Amino acid sequence: MTDTTKTTNQQWGGRFSEPVDAFVARFTASVEFDQRMAKQDIQGSVAHAKMLTSIGVLTEEERDQIIQGLSEIEEEIQRGEFEWSIELEDVHMNIEARLTQKIGITGKKLHTGRSRNDQVATDIRLYMRDEVDFLLEEVTRMQQGILSLAEKEAHTIMPGFTHLQTAQPVTFGHHLMAWYEMAQRDYERLVDCRKRINILPLGAAALAGTTYPIDRFMTADLLGFERPTYNSLDSVSDRDFAIEFTAAASVIMMHMSRWAEEMVMWASAQFNFIFLPDRFCTGSSIMPQKKNPDVPELVRGKTGRVYGHLMSLLTLMKSQCLAYNKDNQEDKEPLFDTVDTLKGSLRAFADMIPAIESRKDNMYEAARRGFSTATDLADYLVRQGVAFRDAHEVVGKAVGYGVKEGKDLSEMTLEELKGFGTMIEQDVFDVLTLEGSVAARDHIGGTAPNQVLLAVERAKTELHARLA
Amino acid sequence: MTDTTKTTNQQWGGRFSEPVDAFVARFTASVEFDQRMAKQDIQGSVAHAKMLTSIGVLTEEERDQIIQGLSEIEEEIQRGEFEWSIELEDVHMNIEARLTQKIGITGKKLHTGRSRNDQVATDIRLYMRDEVDFLLEEVTRMQQGILSLAEKEAHTIMPGFTHLQTAQPVTFGHHLMAWYEMAQRDYERLVDCRKRINILPLGAAALAGTTYPIDRFMTADLLGFERPTYNSLDSVSDRDFAIEFTAAASVIMMHMSRWAEEMVMWASAQFNFIFLPDRFCTGSSIMPQKKNPDVPELVRGKTGRVYGHLMSLLTLMKSQCLAYNKDNQEDKEPLFDTVDTLKGSLRAFADMIPAIESRKDNMYEAARRGFSTATDLADYLVRQGVAFRDAHEVVGKAVGYGVKEGKDLSEMTLEELKGFGTMIEQDVFDVLTLEGSVAARDHIGGTAPNQVLLAVERAKTELHARLA
Amino acid sequence: MTDTTKTTNQQWGGRFSEPVDAFVARFTASVEFDQRMAKQDIQGSVAHAKMLTSIGVLTEEERDQIIQGLSEIEEEIQRGEFEWSIELEDVHMNIEARLTQKIGITGKKLHTGRSRNDQVATDIRLYMRDEVDFLLEEVTRMQQGILSLAEKEAHTIMPGFTHLQTAQPVTFGHHLMAWYEMAQRDYERLVDCRKRINILPLGAAALAGTTYPIDRFMTADLLGFERPTYNSLDSVSDRDFAIEFTAAASVIMMHMSRWAEEMVMWASAQFNFIFLPDRFCTGSSIMPQKKNPDVPELVRGKTGRVYGHLMSLLTLMKSQCLAYNKDNQEDKEPLFDTVDTLKGSLRAFADMIPAIESRKDNMYEAARRGFSTATDLADYLVRQGVAFRDAHEVVGKAVGYGVKEGKDLSEMTLEELKGFGTMIEQDVFDVLTLEGSVAARDHIGGTAPNQVLLAVERAKTELHARLA
Amino acid sequence: MTDTTKTTNQQWGGRFSEPVDAFVARFTASVEFDQRMAKQDIQGSVAHAKMLTSIGVLTEEERDQIIQGLSEIEEEIQRGEFEWSIELEDVHMNIEARLTQKIGITGKKLHTGRSRNDQVATDIRLYMRDEVDFLLEEVTRMQQGILSLAEKEAHTIMPGFTHLQTAQPVTFGHHLMAWYEMAQRDYERLVDCRKRINILPLGAAALAGTTYPIDRFMTADLLGFERPTYNSLDSVSDRDFAIEFTAAASVIMMHMSRWAEEMVMWASAQFNFIFLPDRFCTGSSIMPQKKNPDVPELVRGKTGRVYGHLMSLLTLMKSQCLAYNKDNQEDKEPLFDTVDTLKGSLRAFADMIPAIESRKDNMYEAARRGFSTATDLADYLVRQGVAFRDAHEVVGKAVGYGVKEGKDLSEMTLEELKGFGTMIEQDVFDVLTLEGSVAARDHIGGTAPNQVLLAVERAKTELHARLA
Repeated sequence: MTDTTKTTNQQWGGRFSEPVDAFVARFTASVEFDQRMAKQDIQGSVAHAKMLTSIGVLTEEERDQIIQGLSEIEEEIQRGEFEWSIELEDVHMNIEARLTQKIGITGKKLHTGRSRNDQVATDIRLYMRDEVDFLLEEVTRMQQGILSLAEKEAHTIMPGFTHLQTAQPVTFGHHLMAWYEMAQRDYERLVDCRKRINILPLGAAALAGTTYPIDRFMTADLLGFERPTYNSLDSVSDRDFAIEFTAAASVIMMHMSRWAEEMVMWASAQFNFIFLPDRFCTGSSIMPQKKNPDVPELVRGKTGRVYGHLMSLLTLMKSQCLAYNKDNQEDKEPLFDTVDTLKGSLRAFADMIPAIESRKDNMYEAARRGFSTATDLADYLVRQGVAFRDAHEVVGKAVGYGVKEGKDLSEMTLEELKGFGTMIEQDVFDVLTLEGSVAARDHIGGTAPNQVLLAVERAKTELHARLA
Repeated sequence: MTDTTKTTNQQWGGRFSEPVDAFVARFTASVEFDQRMAKQDIQGSVAHAKMLTSIGVLTEEERDQIIQGLSEIEEEIQRGEFEWSIELEDVHMNIEARLTQKIGITGKKLHTGRSRNDQVATDIRLYMRDEVDFLLEEVTRMQQGILSLAEKEAHTIMPGFTHLQTAQPVTFGHHLMAWYEMAQRDYERLVDCRKRINILPLGAAALAGTTYPIDRFMTADLLGFERPTYNSLDSVSDRDFAIEFTAAASVIMMHMSRWAEEMVMWASAQFNFIFLPDRFCTGSSIMPQKKNPDVPELVRGKTGRVYGHLMSLLTLMKSQCLAYNKDNQEDKEPLFDTVDTLKGSLRAFADMIPAIESRKDNMYEAARRGFSTATDLADYLVRQGVAFRDAHEVVGKAVGYGVKEGKDLSEMTLEELKGFGTMIEQDVFDVLTLEGSVAARDHIGGTAPNQVLLAVERAKTELHARLA
Repeated sequence: MTDTTKTTNQQWGGRFSEPVDAFVARFTASVEFDQRMAKQDIQGSVAHAKMLTSIGVLTEEERDQIIQGLSEIEEEIQRGEFEWSIELEDVHMNIEARLTQKIGITGKKLHTGRSRNDQVATDIRLYMRDEVDFLLEEVTRMQQGILSLAEKEAHTIMPGFTHLQTAQPVTFGHHLMAWYEMAQRDYERLVDCRKRINILPLGAAALAGTTYPIDRFMTADLLGFERPTYNSLDSVSDRDFAIEFTAAASVIMMHMSRWAEEMVMWASAQFNFIFLPDRFCTGSSIMPQKKNPDVPELVRGKTGRVYGHLMSLLTLMKSQCLAYNKDNQEDKEPLFDTVDTLKGSLRAFADMIPAIESRKDNMYEAARRGFSTATDLADYLVRQGVAFRDAHEVVGKAVGYGVKEGKDLSEMTLEELKGFGTMIEQDVFDVLTLEGSVAARDHIGGTAPNQVLLAVERAKTELHARLA
Repeated sequence: MTDTTKTTNQQWGGRFSEPVDAFVARFTASVEFDQRMAKQDIQGSVAHAKMLTSIGVLTEEERDQIIQGLSEIEEEIQRGEFEWSIELEDVHMNIEARLTQKIGITGKKLHTGRSRNDQVATDIRLYMRDEVDFLLEEVTRMQQGILSLAEKEAHTIMPGFTHLQTAQPVTFGHHLMAWYEMAQRDYERLVDCRKRINILPLGAAALAGTTYPIDRFMTADLLGFERPTYNSLDSVSDRDFAIEFTAAASVIMMHMSRWAEEMVMWASAQFNFIFLPDRFCTGSSIMPQKKNPDVPELVRGKTGRVYGHLMSLLTLMKSQCLAYNKDNQEDKEPLFDTVDTLKGSLRAFADMIPAIESRKDNMYEAARRGFSTATDLADYLVRQGVAFRDAHEVVGKAVGYGVKEGKDLSEMTLEELKGFGTMIEQDVFDVLTLEGSVAARDHIGGTAPNQVLLAVERAKTELHARLA
């Protein structure tokens, strides 16, 4: 069962009397997935070379050779011409080996004063910073999409649900602005997470720092990091940022799963509140009449994926002794897949949400049924001097009557209503209409169209400042 | 199988023709756990009463009656004299019913312009803010404990491990300062989380806002919230802060599981690096010689508990339609248990860590074995002009020889060493000592005792500013 | 911050020079939750005493004293008169101390040849076996409830959904029999899990077995276990059964979350497919007209709780060295809460499901809309010789026309239909009716009423055999 | 941001007025991962074609054409010549389109009486059955490896740990047989899981069954399934088997994480209990002396991966309405990666474990320290008539004395020992030796070498029967 082909690793073979088993070599190699960080690996190496030059470890000529060589390698990779080798284990060794092939012994000097432990920690932070920056843009784009729809639907009345039972009328724009607020917190969490990503571990070397008089502030500066890390053992063993990112990503997916659930439900024949453009739907191989809301369904399903990656990373780090352990190689795939899943899902929703068309009549009709203005009647009674809890009971009886008679509150006569409370007068009908009901909730955060438009304005100002 | 005892709920019984099944009443009630928020429920009600008065819904007399009644109830609860009733479902109803019992019909007016949906959202945020503030103090206290030990152990040499193999000598103080950095990020994450907790949902009412001209900024101000929420639907359905807190708590527990693992290992006969005071250990019912490091083991075990609560909350919120659903009642127990677990674990570690005694001789002896200064030899060779990768190979051979001969590098003769590289001279022995090795890593984040003391100073300044 | 009160543990205090910190005593004690296993602890001790007597370690008189003493203690506990002490740590020590108090030195002999490590492993398996047996009964009761409703609704036509879009008509009884099948697998998984619970760890002592010539087969026999475990180290460190049980429980909750989601949706005004009896619903404190499906919502929410416990236990056991570690004390609370959650949720659903009333007209009307017999038309065309994929396209065009004209397929004229395929004849209308459509799916597993009744019969036979 | 390239799907395009967005097409396609089931898809189609022929839907000629075409396609795929197209969405459509290209209109008839919903459910069950069968072999191979080492080490004495403190001497073979028992339960759980995989969903069609008179028992028979499923809605929406498999896999990984932790610890310089052959280790790029136990570390890290996939699948299915939803497409990648992770990890351990070399002297020496025979002394005292709890206290004092004097129990003089209990005689030294201690635990499950060899025999018989 053991492969007969053997491989020898040139980098640390000195001490070993027996070559690594070929299966083991494949099993332990990371190059198949960590090559994704090639750009960042080169970026980090260039900065490291410059710093080494500034402290006299490399000559300027050596530095230029290294930078030139790395630049050529980056192009080879971009052109898809780079030959990745599993025997060279990881992205770092692959690039260094190619560099040495290109520029000779000088290539071997690049690794002075660093180790793969701090190198990979630097690469992954550079990579995550790039991705978080892109994701921040995508969240913003999605917020813009929500906003444009919300503004259009600021006056559209629909039933507001609690327990999936009609509760009170709200406007569709108001409902969408709830989505906006959720996305806003997602944005803020990513920003907070970015702060803790943007710190430079390079210089920690294997775990204890290095004997070279390195200038870590210079390297941090060259790479745009806020500062170097303060402890070398922590630098090579910290994966907090990966967990924090995946936790923030889980909340984003959770939010999208909630919107997806709503969209799927609203697109059903029973609700029929919205129309999803065909390009976000697919058909059925057996049922020709079907138009399936595939995109929201799939995003909802992908929620599990990201939750799983979070659990994976938390498990990975549980009970790990300091400093670096091979276990940590397992941090990358969950992170990469989380990034990809977020990118795809955000893109899909940023494209789809502004293209949703509301079925205003159906929404209105649904809000009209279900005694959605019952609370308004209770509030009316309170304003006539009835204690709230007592008003609640009066309205409860009126609703019970309505259920039996098949009449909504606004369809009862004044006499019928008076039967439940003698203080009810003609003006009660002002508050029993849907328009009156929503307009009356006119305070910050309320569903009045007026307030929805103010909320849209506040959001626009926010996004405008963000993009400035 | 169905209970014969029936209960009728007085708060919303109007519409119902049949009493709730007694088992169902118990199954759906939350008062057994949400009574923990009684203090915050009263605090929120007092602020709400003041605001209602300011907008003319309550008279000043009514307000004072309410505040007086609530104040008495709070004392009843503190004295353990309050009778909690499952029939009254939750903390809110229990307190309101008692208030009405005390002050009559005015008690029923308190619920004007709010709903249990925004009331519970407010209570839980007030509660979490209190708890986060306490946890921030406990993290700080634990950091102080780490710091005091780290300062004492700044010069203590121990083996630094990667892959649990001796890698390079480090100082024990340096290792402890890695713990400090981890706790520092925990502190920062809690602070960030607190920002998103400290926003007022009250005023969202059931889901759409209220028809009363409420002043949400006033209520926010009275309760010390930064601002009111911007969307009523979001206000009653948002549980992000619970997830974010539990995620931050999971990372804290993960960190403590790592330290626990190290302490358990260090306390084993095989390592014998530390002595844990007896008061943090227990014995065995069958093996009289045992002294078990129960506290770190238990904290390590409790990690799963908090990870589980995180997963529980993420699952809870997945695919939930807006706005409030009964599912959300399930947010409290995981949160409460997370808070309790953190409090216990942080307290235990804050007490225990500064009481750890190091076994310096054992640590030193362990560092002396295992060729821990091999990297120093490689660096020495590089300074003699050998390329790093070649130096690595030379040292590898010397180590292989040492393994065979049972000699550490510093135990070889100059001749033996020269056999691997002719450029090696007498001064090599300066870098092959443990003291020389650690002192040489003298840059920010490095393990040099000098740097450890600087790190301790930086941390002290940090904590000093925090506590000011 | 350290408590000044100190406690001394009498069981293993010999080696210790300093008493355990009072906070630490509380923090590490388990008696507050493990007292739930008191009955099983006593049951195990009685069997152990009998076995010790059979091998001559105890006299018959001693055995009888012990059994008598334990029997009295069990009654004290049942009467709520037993005084649990945190200083005595756990259920085992509390009971043993009380026994010794009652019968003197003989009580101390009971612990011969065992340790708390194998004792607790035995208790928890006895406890879990009892609970699994009860849960098997509750799953059965729930299956009976589903069955009784399914039989009643075998001919009720409703829309079958995929992607929450109307796909094909099915019968409500058929839908319910899908629930039955899910519960059937849950039953089987619990039975499989029980096999691995029902093995006796007692005799493993602390970790290595004991020097007494114990008869583990006798103890296994007395306690109804299938056999003793085969390895002592494994016996005290194995928690597989806890994870396996929680995984099976997670699938049960997942199933119930799916049914809950359907019930909540069906009970909405938009679907209006079912009526949930009032006793499984609650009202709103602000909206008098609301009738909220609290029970299914709450069960859906409790899914997260059990998923969380599974993750908690998996995390707990990750990377634990053999044999027993204090971490393992953390296995109990997740298990207990999983048991409680399952019991409550199963009871609620077993009571509620058979009480569901269908709104047959609404279901039928919904199935009539949405082109649900489009597949039947395609199958009709295939029977006329059209290739399936081509038939699919023809029907797609007919549906497109229907959408535009607002006509279901069965509402089109023969001429209109012929416009899409000349081979269509008058007999097409037989397959376009809902009754024709469901009746035609007449094979095992199909939705034909005939098949549903056969499935109900098969299930009844199954349950009858189970209960025999 | 929207791709300008558009695609049209030929299978269900009839109803749609607008092509699917190219990004959406990629986002929703599954062919990139589900092509892994191509072999099973063809296998299922061949059986379906035979069944359709038996009921007269296909002619024998058509059947033979289909089987011939599929056979050619399978070869094309194996040779890597098949062109997978994202526009054709999934493995099913890709194969069917190619079949139609090859054999014309007859290819289109194959899909008669089935849907992609039951087709994919069948494919994944066939696939999982194949993989589970392979995994059962690998678990067996790993058990054989454990067994061969355990037999060799049946007499090797090492310290047995609880709380990572030396507790009692055990034999290394005994410790390994604990691993064997864990793997044995893993085997049994996979067997139980396989029962629930091996049931045929084909025939459920989209969700309701089909109007063709299909013979599901015949198809089940042809494909080696135990029986057809009993409910069509359940057939297309059930993913229990995926969760159950992933839960079983999680326990396997948990077990391996525990062994990995032990191996890493035992391979440390501090323990130095075992030698791991070089081919399962790697070196360091910076520290030439390092030999890192990469394989166990990596397997330990991969535990998180599988736990994560379990959580992913549980989340996926939470609250999903019946029957099929697009979310379910997300079941495959977690399953596939779980299978791959298990295969790699089992292979690595099956190869590595039998190659472990014990350092017997170090193990013995470690067991000799740490008062590991204290329990034996207590048992000795009990046999002299001292009550166990009193004996425990006596031994505790002796150990306290030993700690102070630096003497193990076996190193004390009879006089010293008598100071703690006058009943102690010369024969006490028989039980204070390590050999005496382990030999005395001579009952089923005990650590006596004799018992270990019996356990090995029992296991061999078990495996022999399994492989017969």
